[in-house]
This record gives sequence, structure tokens and C-alpha cells, in this order.
Amino acid sequence: MAKTFAINAGSSSLKFQLFQMPEEEVIAKGLVERIGIGNSIFSIEYGDDQEFEMTEDIDDHGRAVELLFDKLQEFGIVDDLEEITGVGHRVVAGGEDFKESTVVTDAVIERVDELSEFAPLHNPAEAQVMRVFQEKLSNATMVAVFDTSFHTTMPAVNYVYSLPYEYYEDFQARKYGAHGTSHQFVANRAAELVGKPIEELKIITCHLGNGGSITAVDGGKSVDTSMGFTPLAGITMGTRTGDIDPSLIPFLMDKLGIDDVNEMINIFNKKSGLLGISGVSSDMRDVEGAAGEGNERAQLALDIFANRVQKYIGQYIAVMNGVDVIVFTAGIGENSSTTRHRIMDPISVFGALLDPERNDTRKEALISSDDSDVLIYNIPTNEEVAIAREVERLK
Amino acid sequence: MAKTFAINAGSSSLKFQLFQMPEEEVIAKGLVERIGIGNSIFSIEYGDDQEFEMTEDIDDHGRAVELLFDKLQEFGIVDDLEEITGVGHRVVAGGEDFKESTVVTDAVIERVDELSEFAPLHNPAEAQVMRVFQEKLSNATMVAVFDTSFHTTMPAVNYVYSLPYEYYEDFQARKYGAHGTSHQFVANRAAELVGKPIEELKIITCHLGNGGSITAVDGGKSVDTSMGFTPLAGITMGTRTGDIDPSLIPFLMDKLGIDDVNEMINIFNKKSGLLGISGVSSDMRDVEGAAGEGNERAQLALDIFANRVQKYIGQYIAVMNGVDVIVFTAGIGENSSTTRHRIMDPISVFGALLDPERNDTRKEALISSDDSDVLIYNIPTNEEVAIAREVERLK
Repeated sequence: MAKTFAINAGSSSLKFQLFQMPEEEVIAKGLVERIGIGNSIFSIEYGDDQEFEMTEDIDDHGRAVELLFDKLQEFGIVDDLEEITGVGHRVVAGGEDFKESTVVTDAVIERVDELSEFAPLHNPAEAQVMRVFQEKLSNATMVAVFDTSFHTTMPAVNYVYSLPYEYYEDFQARKYGAHGTSHQFVANRAAELVGKPIEELKIITCHLGNGGSITAVDGGKSVDTSMGFTPLAGITMGTRTGDIDPSLIPFLMDKLGIDDVNEMINIFNKKSGLLGISGVSSDMRDVEGAAGEGNERAQLALDIFANRVQKYIGQYIAVMNGVDVIVFTAGIGENSSTTRHRIMDPISVFGALLDPERNDTRKEALISSDDSDVLIYNIPTNEEVAIAREVERLK
Repeated sequence: MAKTFAINAGSSSLKFQLFQMPEEEVIAKGLVERIGIGNSIFSIEYGDDQEFEMTEDIDDHGRAVELLFDKLQEFGIVDDLEEITGVGHRVVAGGEDFKESTVVTDAVIERVDELSEFAPLHNPAEAQVMRVFQEKLSNATMVAVFDTSFHTTMPAVNYVYSLPYEYYEDFQARKYGAHGTSHQFVANRAAELVGKPIEELKIITCHLGNGGSITAVDGGKSVDTSMGFTPLAGITMGTRTGDIDPSLIPFLMDKLGIDDVNEMINIFNKKSGLLGISGVSSDMRDVEGAAGEGNERAQLALDIFANRVQKYIGQYIAVMNGVDVIVFTAGIGENSSTTRHRIMDPISVFGALLDPERNDTRKEALISSDDSDVLIYNIPTNEEVAIAREVERLK
């Protein structure tokens, strides 16, 4: 009865899925929100569509984990915590240190904490949650799975910025990327579906969610990705600018009367993207709805979103000198056939042609036409399963 | 004996060429440097390889123009200033106002001055120089030729940033691009060489100088360009970063103990690019030399430079859904066959193939091979002739 957790801790949240392994069956999943903010919400789904939700003040991640363990036992999801033999923790920033998933030790937790300067909202919470799990489930195998590991195979030509080189040497200022677990998961799945060794394939993976990134996967390795030093860079996202001329920062600070550069970066992260352009919402469904009703700014937001993805597809065909497979995944990528159409239709020159009927899906499917030179797949991502598999692999 | 000036004023410099029109013969050209800095240098070439250079303190652009006029007469280059019937002024920032070259009036000068917030080092000097010429050559036709005009045909999807839309409406924060005169000049010349109407061609123009930009020219119109709100964005340049994750700004300010964001932007503009990566020089020739001697950072700088251009070529093939012609121009683009090779060789998938022998040139030439699907040209740019032609056209 080996059970494995996939844990995703944010600054004020804790997402969890509990798997029966090796069957990869989800036996419980849920979320704790507003940790340390007051009126925290704990919610869990388990068994035959059973659900539970409660609101109370949860002061820190330690208390959130205690509550989770109490409820697991109270609801009979586990009889004994000893059944949980594995815990996988998603970690946002692994820097240059963590080139692959790593069994958690005190030294690993300490290093994750030190890397907080690359992900100030995430890494501290993740380190804290690892410590709590380490204490409460001391017999389980704990594994840290890094969002950045998959991208550590990038060559310097793609990760070094055109800055004074000392900034890389002294401060590790470079491109790290993100969503690595997802890009790797769907790239591997695509190779299975194609029926060829991934070593022989050039794949562009488009992870389009509220955050989004595009990765060039050459021979199974990430060779370039659209996010940068942080997840701000790359394509237009729900609330993030993606790539932008940095000279806009002093210009806008002056115009807006902002003194602190961090406030400007906060606007770039939280008030921009689809939300900023459309003025409607950060949610693609809302923006599509508004555009359908004739809202011109919403239409412009849709067009810009597609445009930026198109540009990265063109870039990554250049980077790999070709492409065999394009994959769409994550919230928007998996579910919005109109977005996929809006992206692919205007770039037919690359020989990647959607089949309109096949594209009308939210499930795993080949969605390119028979006369397309490039295979296009819709592949739902599953970072939680990927994390649980990493735990099993390292047990 | 109609003579026309092409004038290019910078914050502390004044470049000039005097043409005999309509023959487009250069009868004098030169440069005033260190205006307002002390130990200013005035240099001029004219006649049969005659040269003159002097050093004295030149306090402002007005004095620089006076000196120029004195020397033109002293050296018999003109007998009477009335022979100068046209003056074209290069203006860096034309904002959204100036969609084409414009005859200079008081209102035009005032507006150029107001647009200084988009080019703080250039527009004030250019407005001042226009006023001086207006006073001294009141009978000549004066034309302002904007670096940005050619790009005003860009569609919103390419010039609007993924920012709160109000920043565009209220502050005109958008992509403007630069080098428009050069991109337009070489695109038109390429169409002549191809022997087809430019309306039928998709052209990517690579202006690679100390500053550099790439433009997608579809049917004769700029539809996208790599520089942004300012000339900082886009490809790696001599000393400029090009595209970069803006989150690096607060991170590096903190690491470097810098309080003023403008100081950071200054480093991005002046200490980065080829110079920053290589630690050797901002000059491509020096960097190639060092790389040839085994300097690894110099080699990395060359690789990154090529990589960023490759990515824009891929992007702009996506933007235009194809490409018929690729043009290389400006200091590096025209003169470095190795750079052209380094860019084009790894992206053969696009069907644009250099011919090694044809590519071994610094002159106007077709440099693609006979089996290349895309025509590649080397076309020396001539912004000064382009400016003089605009003056003639508007006389």
C-alpha cells in the first residue's frame, strides 16, 4: 500500500496530491490557501467524489501540513501515516546546482533556502514545507523535483545574457527557465506517441497556462526556453508582460511617479499580459468571451498572445534547425482549440498544419493533418504524476 | 549647382555629408566630435582626397555649424552658401507623429524637441541643429528624416507591449524601432536587384552595426522590427544587451549596490553586448581577433551574437509566414563574411543558403547559392544618400 505525495508549496498555499503507487492512482488531492493571511481555506477531494472544505486561520505551512495529516486519518484515506513512503516536493528555483531531482537531506533544504533570491515567493515556503515533512514522515523517501532541472542542459549560448560576463560568474545572473517538469513530461509522452526514440526528435513544447513558456527540446534535452532569469520573460501570460524593452522601466516609473523599481516589476508580473492589454481578465476564457462580443482590446490581447507564441516557435525552429513535433499543453494549451488555431494557422510556412476536426479536443490526441510535415499533439500535462514518478525512481 | 546636406546630430557630435544633386556625388563629408566637452575635433574630407582636422573648444552645435560653413567657403567647397539648396536632418525619434519625412517648420522643430523623452540624447541636439540651419540657410529646403518613420506601418499586434493598455494610450509606450532609413534603403535596393516589385516580396533586413536591428519588410512595409521602445531592445549589440529579462534590473541593482535605475539602464546600453560578454571590445573585428587566438569569452560573444540574429530571422519568418529575401547591411553586416556565415550556416532549414565564394565580399552582391530557395544579398547601406533623396523628393 505504498502512497506517495506530490507537494507544491507557494508563498501562501500548499497543493497536494496523494498517489497509490505504482498504479499512479490519485487517492486524494486538495489545496490549502491563504496560509498566514487569515480565513485560510483547506479543501480536499477523495474516495468516490467525496469533498470537504473548511475555513480557519492557518498561521504557517507547518500547521497546514498537520491539518492535512489529521484529515487524511479522520477520513480514512490512510490508516497510518507510515503508509506514505514517498514525498515529492516541487521546487521552483534550483539554480545551477540541481541538474536533476534529488533526495532531500538537510544540506539540500539549506541550499533550496539559499536559492530564494531566484524565487523569493516560492523557495522559502518550499524549504519550510520540506522541513515539516522531514520531521513528521521521517521514514518516507523525500525528493526535491526542480522546475529548472530540465533546462540545465541548455548550452551557454542560450543561457548567457549579453551583460557584463562577471554578472554571470559572480551572481549567477543567467537564464534558468521554468515549467521544466511539464516540458519534460509532455516531450517524453510525445516521443512515445510518435513511436521514435526521443533522441531522434526535435520537439517544441508549448506550455500555455496562466503562466506560459515554450521550450526547444532537441534529442530529449532542453536547449532553450522562453522564460528567463525569472518567469517574467518570454511570451505574453495571464498577468505577465513576457519580453519587453527594459528601458520602459525608468520611463514608466517617471510617468507613474513610482520610486521603487520592484513596484514596477510587480506591475509587469501582476497587472500586465492578457489582463493589462484587454482590461477584462487574465483568464483566456474571459478574454475570448469579450472578444467574441466585439471588445477590441480583448481581440488585440488574443492576437498578441498568439503572435508571441508564433515568434517563439519560429525562434526555436532556428535554434534546432528544424522541428519534428509541436506539443500544446497546460490550461490554455490543452483546452483552447481556438488558441491553438490562432497560433498555428498564420505560420503554415513551417509545415505544421492543424486538422480542424482533430484539433477540436481537450484530450491527448494527434491534432495535425495527414499532410502536415510536422506532427502536432495535444498532451495534457501532469506535473504531479511526474513528481511522483521521480520519487519512485529515486526510492 | 544644387547641393544638399545630410546632417546627423548626436548629443555631442555632428556628422555631415554634402552632396552634389541629383548626381548624388559626395563633395565633402566630416564630423565634429566632443561638442561642449572641450578639445573638440573638427574633421573634413573633400575634393581629391583632401583632408583637414583641427582641435578647439566648440561650445555648442551652433558654433559647430558656423565653423563648418566657414571651412566650406575657405576651402572653396562652396563659393556661396546659397548653393546649398537642401538640408536633410536625421531625427532619431519621430514618435507616432511623423509617418514620413517632413519639411521642417517651427512647429516640426518644436515637436521634435517635445519627443526628446523618447531619445533624450539625440532629439534635443537635432532640434537645436535644425534651428541653426534654419537661421543660416533660410532659403534651403529643410527636411526631417525620421529613424522611426519606416516602422510606423507596423500593426498593433507587433508594436503594443503586453502592459496595461493605458500606458500606450496615455504615454505612447510602444515599440518604435530605429534604423528605419537604412532598412527601407536596403529593402528597396534588394527589390531592384531581384527585379520584382517590392509589393510582392517578403524581406528580412539585418542592419548589423555597432547598434543593430532586424526588420520584417512585407510588401515594402515594415511589419516588425527588433528594436523596441528604445534602441536597447532586440539583438546583442556592440555595447547593448538587446532583449533581457527585466527582473534582472532589481536583482543586479541589489547585487551591485546601485540605487538609480537609470544607472543600470546605462550599463545595459554601454557596458554590455559584445563588450560585456567578451571583456575584450565592442568592435566585432577585435572580438573575432581575440576568439581566433583562443579567447573563450570572445568566442561565446560571437556565438551569442549569431544566435540572437538567427532567432529574429526565425521570428520574422513566422511573422510574415515566409521569406523571399534576406539582406545584410551596415558595418558588420556588410563587411564580415564570417559573421554572415556564422548566422546562416546553422539555420539551413529555412532554405536560405550562402554560397561561400559569393559571400567572400564587402560589396553589393547576391551571396546565396544557386540552390537556395531564399535570395541572400549583401547591400551596403547609405543613410546619407537616402536622406539627400528625401530632400530632393520633397523640394
